[in-house]
Amino acid sequence: MAWTLAEIASKIGAELIGDANKVITGVGTLQNATADDISFLANSKYRHYLKETAAGCVIVSPADAAEVSTNALVIADTYVAYAKTASLLYPEERTDIGIHPTAVIGTDTVIADSAKIAAQVVIGTNVSIGENVDIGPGCIIENGVAIGADSRLMANVTLCRKVRIGNRVRIHPGVVIGADGFGIANDKGHWLKIPQVGSVVIGDDVEIGANTTIDRGAIDDTIIGNGVKLDNQIQIGHNCTVGEHTVIAGCVGIAGSTHIGANCAIGGGTGIAGHIEIADGVQLTGMSMVTKSITAAGTYSSGIPIEPTREWHRNVIRYRQLDKLHDKVKQLESRLK
Amino acid sequence: MAWTLAEIASKIGAELIGDANKVITGVGTLQNATADDISFLANSKYRHYLKETAAGCVIVSPADAAEVSTNALVIADTYVAYAKTASLLYPEERTDIGIHPTAVIGTDTVIADSAKIAAQVVIGTNVSIGENVDIGPGCIIENGVAIGADSRLMANVTLCRKVRIGNRVRIHPGVVIGADGFGIANDKGHWLKIPQVGSVVIGDDVEIGANTTIDRGAIDDTIIGNGVKLDNQIQIGHNCTVGEHTVIAGCVGIAGSTHIGANCAIGGGTGIAGHIEIADGVQLTGMSMVTKSITAAGTYSSGIPIEPTREWHRNVIRYRQLDKLHDKVKQLESRLK
Amino acid sequence: MAWTLAEIASKIGAELIGDANKVITGVGTLQNATADDISFLANSKYRHYLKETAAGCVIVSPADAAEVSTNALVIADTYVAYAKTASLLYPEERTDIGIHPTAVIGTDTVIADSAKIAAQVVIGTNVSIGENVDIGPGCIIENGVAIGADSRLMANVTLCRKVRIGNRVRIHPGVVIGADGFGIANDKGHWLKIPQVGSVVIGDDVEIGANTTIDRGAIDDTIIGNGVKLDNQIQIGHNCTVGEHTVIAGCVGIAGSTHIGANCAIGGGTGIAGHIEIADGVQLTGMSMVTKSITAAGTYSSGIPIEPTREWHRNVIRYRQLDKLHDKVKQLESRLK
Repeated sequence: MAWTLAEIASKIGAELIGDANKVITGVGTLQNATADDISFLANSKYRHYLKETAAGCVIVSPADAAEVSTNALVIADTYVAYAKTASLLYPEERTDIGIHPTAVIGTDTVIADSAKIAAQVVIGTNVSIGENVDIGPGCIIENGVAIGADSRLMANVTLCRKVRIGNRVRIHPGVVIGADGFGIANDKGHWLKIPQVGSVVIGDDVEIGANTTIDRGAIDDTIIGNGVKLDNQIQIGHNCTVGEHTVIAGCVGIAGSTHIGANCAIGGGTGIAGHIEIADGVQLTGMSMVTKSITAAGTYSSGIPIEPTREWHRNVIRYRQLDKLHDKVKQLESRLK
Repeated sequence: MAWTLAEIASKIGAELIGDANKVITGVGTLQNATADDISFLANSKYRHYLKETAAGCVIVSPADAAEVSTNALVIADTYVAYAKTASLLYPEERTDIGIHPTAVIGTDTVIADSAKIAAQVVIGTNVSIGENVDIGPGCIIENGVAIGADSRLMANVTLCRKVRIGNRVRIHPGVVIGADGFGIANDKGHWLKIPQVGSVVIGDDVEIGANTTIDRGAIDDTIIGNGVKLDNQIQIGHNCTVGEHTVIAGCVGIAGSTHIGANCAIGGGTGIAGHIEIADGVQLTGMSMVTKSITAAGTYSSGIPIEPTREWHRNVIRYRQLDKLHDKVKQLESRLK
Repeated sequence: MAWTLAEIASKIGAELIGDANKVITGVGTLQNATADDISFLANSKYRHYLKETAAGCVIVSPADAAEVSTNALVIADTYVAYAKTASLLYPEERTDIGIHPTAVIGTDTVIADSAKIAAQVVIGTNVSIGENVDIGPGCIIENGVAIGADSRLMANVTLCRKVRIGNRVRIHPGVVIGADGFGIANDKGHWLKIPQVGSVVIGDDVEIGANTTIDRGAIDDTIIGNGVKLDNQIQIGHNCTVGEHTVIAGCVGIAGSTHIGANCAIGGGTGIAGHIEIADGVQLTGMSMVTKSITAAGTYSSGIPIEPTREWHRNVIRYRQLDKLHDKVKQLESRLK
């Protein structure tokens, strides 16, 4: 796509300094952009590139506008402005509307005429697929699934029986939604399976990263709220709920029946125990270990970052002796009294 | 399915207090059950719901029976009783027995007449598929694989060459069994691949969660014992063995050639080093870090749960100073002497 | 395959002690090898098996040669010699060259005559597939992808649009390369998607383990260098670069825009923050937590291994009191002065 700077300025609500007729056809980083690209500055670490960039235009905040040697689009939130600009320049393509002849479709399934069902897809019975939905190649959609309008399954996605997907949801390859939760009961040394009869409900405007798994509920449903964004390789256990507009980075594991609030941000590699509650507005830094409910908004952390291995060895030993050290200090105190 | 309370009581061995002819058609939580549902109390935290539940029946322990305001099935282990009841009400469905016309089957492969091979499945040569096996859509079964009776691959599962699966095994979508182990040798700065010529043997009554991976052995086989239950997104390295009836929660990683005992319970997110032994009956809490063999049954833990980020920063600094603190205390002690 | 010991000795550059005409047809561990197998000793822990092994030959270092009771191939680096020997005995099979009739191939796609496209594969438009490439069953290859010669996708692999794969690359089942990076901008409480317009470039001789995910770049490409070896279930964020001959063990997560040097070795379960740099030659032990750049080669570690749960509880409490303990020691010191 190609847009003039005047058009982009108008669409994103920025002030244009420079050539209104300049045509932009792509995006680039400040370091690598060419004359037809637009770039942006959101991280001050890259500020020194403003003077030397070859970009045809840079999106900058008012404070940085004077530094720009090329055309500038000036706006307070440059990252949001960049998101909107890039979406103008790279609109999502939809090709090959209709049902590919190799797709296998069950009975009593309703597929909107505007939907695309790609090659090698398998869709079960009693499935409902909304307007403008794209089902990419190799996806498996089991019986009773419903997918809202404008949603997109990229490829090799598996939706198990009766899973419900909202509108404008985007699901990346390898995602599995609605596999059985990990419900077992120990019967004299053997494990009995607990049938998992709940389902999974995914809200509107959710994005789910590659190879993430979200298990179906044991009795009630697992629920992912509107606007939630999930990165890759996340595991969400049965009967969890995730509140609206919460974002979760890669490799997070959430055990069953835990409720995450709205507007949370969970760092990558975090582990969250089951059967707990996380309040709205909680931020967890990467690799956090959460074993109890968090009742107040705020930022929480755990984990001790790396040291040279020799020092690590020594500190681990000292850690193991903490209780003794504590006792020694107590004794010293009482002897001083 | 529908069962009377008299029938359920008889099947699960519980004492019935109430209407023997009451018909139950589903399960529900104490909070959400309707009059046709059966519910249960296994976690005392939910005890207060007993009086107000709308369930048609509740499975309770003798100690709680007096609290129930509806019909009750009284039995010591309510969770096991619930597992059995739910399995009565929601028996596994098997439809479309036979081979779907889009499935591709190799030569010298034997498939029981009672098996189901779904759409878009690919099965190699010299494969053996037992009675009542269900191979879900999109599964790939490479040459020489054997699958025992009554096993079920849900969808998009990959079984690599010569993998052997026992009876009554249940494998969820996205699982990969028998990919090459991570075997490499450094030849003057370049890594040479070690051919992985062992396989994977999965015992009877094993369940394997979505997107879990189990690598084939380098020379001998990787072995998963009977009755093992694996949650989602677990990684089991080459030549590991997992003892019977051990359960492993989500996101656990086990490096190569480690032997896990029988009847262990491994918490989610745990990491276990390679070439070690874990005794029978070991319990590891979530996010444990295991670097050495564990020689005795018992419960083990590691990791420091979250704190507010400001306190975390301070404690990390103090942790780094532990060795110095230790020395100071020693000096104080000697000065006091 | 079958080779005489004379042939193997010549191919791997080892000195043969014993029967030059002895025919070897497989490999075995020292404990389990049979008379037609070759074995090796690389880990001194298994040295005591040398005298009792039933193997037809053992690859040993000069120091161990005298201990061998059977034929011996003597060479300094026994593990590299074993890698080469096993590759002779188990060469990669290539069968069914050509395009399976169930594969779906887009327009303007070029596939070498020597390539194999297995059943149920979907290949988009403008794809290029090199000589001797094997695309296993169920793989999805989106528009504009290029795959170099002698590369192999095992099964159920997804390569998203425009991903470029080098020569002699090996990709295991369930891998997803080129899914969108996790790029979002917060617009007054709602998250806007940042279009991910970069791609992924995989170098030559790379191996990628099962269910690993490598995201496409936001603007520039994500790059995996030549000779990199990745284990299973790794997550590599958008715009990361991984230097040549670096090896990464299973379950590692690397956040976006991080640059890993060459010849690094990253232990399993490690988490690495975004926007940092790891120098060449860095080794990280398992479950390391990396929050800042590492500027010098060397070995780094973090994490506190397990203890019995009761002791763990006590030490966690003591850890939380570290700051207070520190103050107490300071007070003691000043009182003593």
